[in-house]
Amino acid sequence: MTLSPTSRSTIQRAKKRAVTDRAALHAVLDAGLVCHLGFLRENAPVVLPTGYGRDGDTLFLHGSSGAFSLRTAGQREEICVTVTLLDGLVYARAVFHYSVNYRSAVIHGVPEVVNERDDKLHALRVVSEHLAPGSWDYSREPTKQELAKTTVLALDLTEAAVKIRNGPPVDDDEDVEAGDRWAGVLPLHAQWGDPRPCTLLPDGVAIPEHVLGRASQPYAPVPEA
Amino acid sequence: MTLSPTSRSTIQRAKKRAVTDRAALHAVLDAGLVCHLGFLRENAPVVLPTGYGRDGDTLFLHGSSGAFSLRTAGQREEICVTVTLLDGLVYARAVFHYSVNYRSAVIHGVPEVVNERDDKLHALRVVSEHLAPGSWDYSREPTKQELAKTTVLALDLTEAAVKIRNGPPVDDDEDVEAGDRWAGVLPLHAQWGDPRPCTLLPDGVAIPEHVLGRASQPYAPVPEA
Repeated sequence: MTLSPTSRSTIQRAKKRAVTDRAALHAVLDAGLVCHLGFLRENAPVVLPTGYGRDGDTLFLHGSSGAFSLRTAGQREEICVTVTLLDGLVYARAVFHYSVNYRSAVIHGVPEVVNERDDKLHALRVVSEHLAPGSWDYSREPTKQELAKTTVLALDLTEAAVKIRNGPPVDDDEDVEAGDRWAGVLPLHAQWGDPRPCTLLPDGVAIPEHVLGRASQPYAPVPEA
Repeated sequence: MTLSPTSRSTIQRAKKRAVTDRAALHAVLDAGLVCHLGFLRENAPVVLPTGYGRDGDTLFLHGSSGAFSLRTAGQREEICVTVTLLDGLVYARAVFHYSVNYRSAVIHGVPEVVNERDDKLHALRVVSEHLAPGSWDYSREPTKQELAKTTVLALDLTEAAVKIRNGPPVDDDEDVEAGDRWAGVLPLHAQWGDPRPCTLLPDGVAIPEHVLGRASQPYAPVPEA
């Protein structure tokens, strides 16, 4: 299946960076942790960071029911959700050709509000397990009141585009031939640090394996080619 | 000077996380490398990642003159620019209280297109030095043709809001008192890796200090309290 079924989500620039593969879309969404949600307020765009989780070809967003972003986004208005991973900086020979290596996914659609209790719990589990795998079963489940305070949106992934840049600088031939300036890539790496226990914990509460096993692991590493 | 002069950029949720200090806005913008630019296309929001640089209370964005985002954003339309830094994951005792530690800046405004040659060169230097300090003077400057192919926007930072969460989980008293579940923060760290020279370089082109000195340095570390 290919992405970008509409002209809007067709990559306008740098078409060679478009990856028309649904697996690539899923990979970018699964690697990231925070998306940028774009919606309209008084006919002007607003962009806010928020958490998410993916289940098949559905993206779930959640937030406080009082949050303007989700109240607005839930009113059958079009939204745009973008996930970007920064993988490195591309030092070129010419200022004009500087670039970044990155992976990004851009999704357009009209979200549905998830209202039914079981569906909502499922969606929250998906978001929770995406952010913090192993946490749902370990933690206290939401109460009825907490569920009511949480708005969940479901966004179909049909209209989506992926762009990936991963490689060396692309300079003009004459600058390459001049051979007098260094060029290359400075990769950016992220990883989880050591868990910092809450100071209110009683003695003897061990760090659970689903947290401890994540320490020192890379975050969103670039997949091997 | 405080941020948020209008109701739109007043933080709607989590007011305690708003930092009404211009220095905090500058710090978030200076720490990040990529922003998310929100603009309207056919009355629907579009959110795309792009580079930027800051000079005083002006944010410069640049991109290909052919890119729809900048063509649209340059037509005296409102845009929203958001920079988010992810600092850690907050493991709470209850699913409802899971959170992330982060820093974000959200800017609203109508950008100006920078047309005059010297202004444009200045803006591009600002963006270039933000992404890759030391690169402007080291690299080949843009030609007249390259300048024409580049659109630069200037966005005033007057209407902006900063949100920062940095701390332990905030759970309900009864969950804390139960004392049976671990809670804490898993910090996320990013750092620059080792430079990867372009394979087209002739032998003997040394990695310049402005690149080599960045290797192994942290990216966007959380400032000491």
